[in-house]
Amino acid sequence: MLNAINREIPEGFGVPYSGDMIEPGGRAVGHLVKSVRPHEDKVLKSLKDAIIASGLKDGMTISFHHHFREGDYILNMVLEAIDELGIKNLKLAPSSLNSCHEPVVDYIKKGVITSIETSGLRGRLAVEISKGILGKPVIIRSHGGRPRAIESDELHIDVAFIGAPCADKYGNLNGVYGSSACGALGYAMVDARYADCVIAITDNLMDYPIEPISIPSTLIDYVVCVDSIGNPEGIMSGATRFTRSPKELLIAEYASKVIINSGLFKDGFSLQMGSGGASLAVARYLSKVMREKNIKASYGLGGITGPFVDMLEEGLVEKLLDVQCFDLKAVESIRDDKRHMEIDASYYANPFNKGCAVNNLDVVILSALEVDTDFNVNVMTGSDGIIMGASGGHSDAAYGAKLTIITTPLIRGRLPIVVDKVQTVITPGSSIDVVVTERGIAVNPKNKELMDRLKEARLPLYSIEELKHMAEKMTGRPDEVMFGDKVVGVVQYRDGSIIDVIRNVVD
Amino acid sequence: MLNAINREIPEGFGVPYSGDMIEPGGRAVGHLVKSVRPHEDKVLKSLKDAIIASGLKDGMTISFHHHFREGDYILNMVLEAIDELGIKNLKLAPSSLNSCHEPVVDYIKKGVITSIETSGLRGRLAVEISKGILGKPVIIRSHGGRPRAIESDELHIDVAFIGAPCADKYGNLNGVYGSSACGALGYAMVDARYADCVIAITDNLMDYPIEPISIPSTLIDYVVCVDSIGNPEGIMSGATRFTRSPKELLIAEYASKVIINSGLFKDGFSLQMGSGGASLAVARYLSKVMREKNIKASYGLGGITGPFVDMLEEGLVEKLLDVQCFDLKAVESIRDDKRHMEIDASYYANPFNKGCAVNNLDVVILSALEVDTDFNVNVMTGSDGIIMGASGGHSDAAYGAKLTIITTPLIRGRLPIVVDKVQTVITPGSSIDVVVTERGIAVNPKNKELMDRLKEARLPLYSIEELKHMAEKMTGRPDEVMFGDKVVGVVQYRDGSIIDVIRNVVD
Repeated sequence: MLNAINREIPEGFGVPYSGDMIEPGGRAVGHLVKSVRPHEDKVLKSLKDAIIASGLKDGMTISFHHHFREGDYILNMVLEAIDELGIKNLKLAPSSLNSCHEPVVDYIKKGVITSIETSGLRGRLAVEISKGILGKPVIIRSHGGRPRAIESDELHIDVAFIGAPCADKYGNLNGVYGSSACGALGYAMVDARYADCVIAITDNLMDYPIEPISIPSTLIDYVVCVDSIGNPEGIMSGATRFTRSPKELLIAEYASKVIINSGLFKDGFSLQMGSGGASLAVARYLSKVMREKNIKASYGLGGITGPFVDMLEEGLVEKLLDVQCFDLKAVESIRDDKRHMEIDASYYANPFNKGCAVNNLDVVILSALEVDTDFNVNVMTGSDGIIMGASGGHSDAAYGAKLTIITTPLIRGRLPIVVDKVQTVITPGSSIDVVVTERGIAVNPKNKELMDRLKEARLPLYSIEELKHMAEKMTGRPDEVMFGDKVVGVVQYRDGSIIDVIRNVVD
Repeated sequence: MLNAINREIPEGFGVPYSGDMIEPGGRAVGHLVKSVRPHEDKVLKSLKDAIIASGLKDGMTISFHHHFREGDYILNMVLEAIDELGIKNLKLAPSSLNSCHEPVVDYIKKGVITSIETSGLRGRLAVEISKGILGKPVIIRSHGGRPRAIESDELHIDVAFIGAPCADKYGNLNGVYGSSACGALGYAMVDARYADCVIAITDNLMDYPIEPISIPSTLIDYVVCVDSIGNPEGIMSGATRFTRSPKELLIAEYASKVIINSGLFKDGFSLQMGSGGASLAVARYLSKVMREKNIKASYGLGGITGPFVDMLEEGLVEKLLDVQCFDLKAVESIRDDKRHMEIDASYYANPFNKGCAVNNLDVVILSALEVDTDFNVNVMTGSDGIIMGASGGHSDAAYGAKLTIITTPLIRGRLPIVVDKVQTVITPGSSIDVVVTERGIAVNPKNKELMDRLKEARLPLYSIEELKHMAEKMTGRPDEVMFGDKVVGVVQYRDGSIIDVIRNVVD
């Protein structure tokens, strides 16, 4: 069966993507009502004690957040304890998975983990999943789709494990103090609200009450203190440096000119940028023009980086709405500057609430692993068909923003990036306004006004097909990837409909 | 039928109070799932437009918050619009009602309002209710009981009206900026999370996004801008002044000595104080001794006043957890000092979550209209049986704190305050440790340790019966109030069980 963007969706994986957002209805699931007597203690001696107290059993679902990125110790530590307790057949439902979670491969082999729902997968785990190691397909959700699924009980979390850089003895949590500081805890906030049991794991246990309170004690069942919950070097990418790649700088310059000439570049405009080299270079170009023309942005959104903080501190951006901090500068800023506000994933991007922040975006700059001639974007699988990325907030921000810009090199290694048909669609072409490469810019024909404006600005415009030909001229047409028949991944669109599936790669 | 504290509870009003807290079970109700498309506008032209858009119909329930106290314009304004639209038979469920809500009497007469659930009632409305004007009894809940009832759907809010001193066009709200600034919006936060439709009414409409965000846009359906939502003179009591009444100063001195000698007065202790003269005088006495002994409190809780802010600023209290600001100094502090944190009513006092803030209290100082020889406390009805107060956080804090102190003059006017049997029980005697009057102190015999400690400190101790006799000696035994047979009020304990009923007074 083909969905609205002509992707083959086998029966049994859910409602195929319709081409627009499903309308929601009904009520969210309610949290389990519990009580705690005055002066009761929530601190347990060990992770195992907490897992036992939680009532975790075979067949249940456990969740984690990915704010520690490649520095996360929590997920592996918890799976080790669960394995030692002999609990099996669990669904692993973190907000995302990274290369550091390679040990999950072994827990899959042992039957501890038998299904996975996540935004992304990287490293050896992703390779093994791509080859078909897991019995059931991984469910891929966007950062906005995950809170939607949790609130509707489509994803029911039995026990949430929340790594907390700072926690008090009663379970108030924040991410801004301690040696594992990660800044915003935007993804974990949703888990805390809906999971049947919530275990906070910290290496920085304080007296009640801490400040700020990002996740309140009213949502936390147990608190466990361990030696270390994360490796700061993996949590933080360190000071974000601007790219010196001439290719990335050229892409950034073009993207900036697209914004400046889009008709949206005026006082009070809003902006989301990624954390890649080109995005950060856009920040620098844009800042210069904003200074010259005395234009201030009303807010910056998303995962926040140092360059965005610089713009806040210079007064070029009035507020930052931050679901995830990418570097130390962002952590310090969200801790110290009240204009830099922590938001949860539902506030950020959930399509099924009364107005998430992506809905007010003027401009978003997003990356791509591949773009096709229908402007569909893949940020999930490599050209070789192997999973290597994450859905993230890509489709969410693309849907919300008035101007969605994809910045990407035209070729990567020896492979074309603009192609006939992407391996995996994460964001449908209907959400994309323009693709910016170092060789030229392709405007989605649906946005006639933008095309006219960029023509007038004498930017190097091409059709998306022309970009594709340009790329293929340099690389040749790559060999077709050999896929098997097994569905190893189901990609949900943000509303829960199925926008694509990922099939196993054959060696 | 008698409940556990021997109050006569007629059949049909609910489960009688058991003497301890009911254990909760099951799930909370989920919110209605809605969505808003990108760049849609939430601002409607008039209150009537918003009421129409909300789908409000005969028989539904509407809610309000009472952070504007005697300065509230919202409730009367909304009822006027509802009346003009011809909607009738509504349940009025504000967090509390004040004297300024006298017009509700007329809406009851007109059939617009046919039932009421609130924490308190004052002024002419309270008098009329006491006489039996309303067909059904008013349900009285504590500040912790209300979020419990909302979360369990016992109190289902169809449309919540939230007066917002500062709102942006997408419905982010805070209470700290604007001419009607009231500080914390702790009560309204719960309504916003659970009501089927939420209308924000502001006189200070800003661009998206405001800072801070106390109530997020994701919960707000419509925003309406009006000329004025409140009278600052009624919202704020102005700078809180210390009492000069020798009687209140003596009560405060005794209460301070009770705390200092309780065994709880040590570094890191926690404290809730009221906003009355004696409570504020306690703050001053206590501060002096804290300075001398170098003792710091970990947190102050509750409705926050200027004197508590002084303690924060001096470093005598490390944090403030604030559900409601009582004066301008508290508003400025919650706006500017991050150690002064806004909390919602569920976080403050809901017995049915995983740990509300009253649970960690060491000491609370509470007032009383009457106390009886079982230590039961009335803060609801006067000695004449007429409703004149509010349940507030009285029973919540009393249950949570290790040391619950009632401060009250022994007689008021010509009436004894310590009596055989209070007109209405709000807080059961089992939660009260000590009653402090200007003539002496009575310790609840259940707290033997406290009695020993206070004896050793040579404080003027009496039995509660002795205090009662002392009072009656001065006033004589007052005439019995004549009550009718009609139940005009049902007092819920914080867990929802029925601790008392209020009968109509007969002229």
